[in-house]
Amino acid sequence: MGSEAPRLSVAEVQDFLATEFPQVADDFIVEALGPMSARLRMEPGERHLRPGGTISGPTLFTLADCAVYLALIAMVGSEALAVTTNASVDFMRKPEAGRALIADVTLLKLGRALVVGDVHIRSEGGDALVARATMTYSRPR
Amino acid sequence: MGSEAPRLSVAEVQDFLATEFPQVADDFIVEALGPMSARLRMEPGERHLRPGGTISGPTLFTLADCAVYLALIAMVGSEALAVTTNASVDFMRKPEAGRALIADVTLLKLGRALVVGDVHIRSEGGDALVARATMTYSRPR
Amino acid sequence: MGSEAPRLSVAEVQDFLATEFPQVADDFIVEALGPMSARLRMEPGERHLRPGGTISGPTLFTLADCAVYLALIAMVGSEALAVTTNASVDFMRKPEAGRALIADVTLLKLGRALVVGDVHIRSEGGDALVARATMTYSRPR
Amino acid sequence: MGSEAPRLSVAEVQDFLATEFPQVADDFIVEALGPMSARLRMEPGERHLRPGGTISGPTLFTLADCAVYLALIAMVGSEALAVTTNASVDFMRKPEAGRALIADVTLLKLGRALVVGDVHIRSEGGDALVARATMTYSRPR
Repeated sequence: MGSEAPRLSVAEVQDFLATEFPQVADDFIVEALGPMSARLRMEPGERHLRPGGTISGPTLFTLADCAVYLALIAMVGSEALAVTTNASVDFMRKPEAGRALIADVTLLKLGRALVVGDVHIRSEGGDALVARATMTYSRPR
Repeated sequence: MGSEAPRLSVAEVQDFLATEFPQVADDFIVEALGPMSARLRMEPGERHLRPGGTISGPTLFTLADCAVYLALIAMVGSEALAVTTNASVDFMRKPEAGRALIADVTLLKLGRALVVGDVHIRSEGGDALVARATMTYSRPR
Repeated sequence: MGSEAPRLSVAEVQDFLATEFPQVADDFIVEALGPMSARLRMEPGERHLRPGGTISGPTLFTLADCAVYLALIAMVGSEALAVTTNASVDFMRKPEAGRALIADVTLLKLGRALVVGDVHIRSEGGDALVARATMTYSRPR
Repeated sequence: MGSEAPRLSVAEVQDFLATEFPQVADDFIVEALGPMSARLRMEPGERHLRPGGTISGPTLFTLADCAVYLALIAMVGSEALAVTTNASVDFMRKPEAGRALIADVTLLKLGRALVVGDVHIRSEGGDALVARATMTYSRPR
């Protein structure tokens, strides 16, 4: 399945996001989809910042969680009941001030029961990682 | 340091929360503090739910992250610049509908450089774990 | 299932260990079993040490991995095909020299598909945590 | 520092491995070093297998842990006292029978206090991931 193209288009995934995660749909833009991969863009607002200009951990977690979910949806079609069972996140650097965040997801495993996705988050235009995350989703049987 | 009482009172930690995390200060109530431990209470609202009545992963992450931070603050006094460097979370069960969430934190390590806290989240009045998380904070030197 | 007694006895689990993990069966002693819990003891040898007297990470990982597996086996009976799907480990302190290691496991979830266990490792007779780990096992359907 | 070449050669790192990790030095071969990256090769033996032909979790953990450490050593020179503080591992697929394992490490962060490395483990000649791991090392000040 790894080399197949996504079933859904960028517009379809963006629509799914608006329906499924209305709280964050305005913050996240689906920029690109590929086989087992996706790219999301997020424009941080005041409410995502912590003192010192750091993006809050929960904001980065939300971005990573959403990114893996959307990469999964893009590959298998709408599947609203998959749930996160495990997440590990490393927060590595302060993002650059005034820049958008870019989340690049790769699905490492797309099994019938478990899906594992790896996310790298950077400031737009930068090389250095702001955070990395691995998320496991459990699919309903 | 593990057996010492917290330096801050419940009211002082609640005040710190209001200042430091204004976005979530209305959602979280500091219920109790002890040596290297704390208990937070959260009343989930519509915006924290996902289809099927599950509490969203980001909501549980935010609760866990905050709980460890507040347990640290209670022990060492205000220290706004400690940052999360690592988080691992296991999401285990759907919370019970219409119940508050209770987060119990234990600080497993309170070092000069790194602080590690373990969080158990349950539905109020229930035994079963909804989620567990371990958070590592790095303290400024 | 959480409050039920284990199906297997300490001797039966020790036998299972000898069959299933012959490489480590001489190092690990099953000390106690309870509902959803187990305690293992390990006597570290020279080959488990790193310079400075620290127990190596792989040794602690092996102890944690084994401990969760044996706690599972004790509850459900022999099930040789369950496999670890995820592990997160925090290494917190150097163990005390010349002491055995004690691993206390609690099964946080014992589902049909996924099993999650939490492990706390200490030096025998000490309170401070040497390491903590959470392991997820996937059970064959 | 990310774009600099390693300070140590493949032979120097292999020597370091023989001195520092004598238990595994015969199992692991340093195949390549690059800026912030390294490749290790491991030939699994009978003692690394579990029933069903799966490589044991502890074996994969050891390979990942060692790989990050050696990538660090290659960049900064011998530093025997760095210790693992956190590890998260996802075990994803059975390796292919009779094949060596290849571990590719990328150092995501090489800070003065914390070093984070990401490891991808595959069967030699294969694309599919057997496991991925992220390891954090704490450097002595």
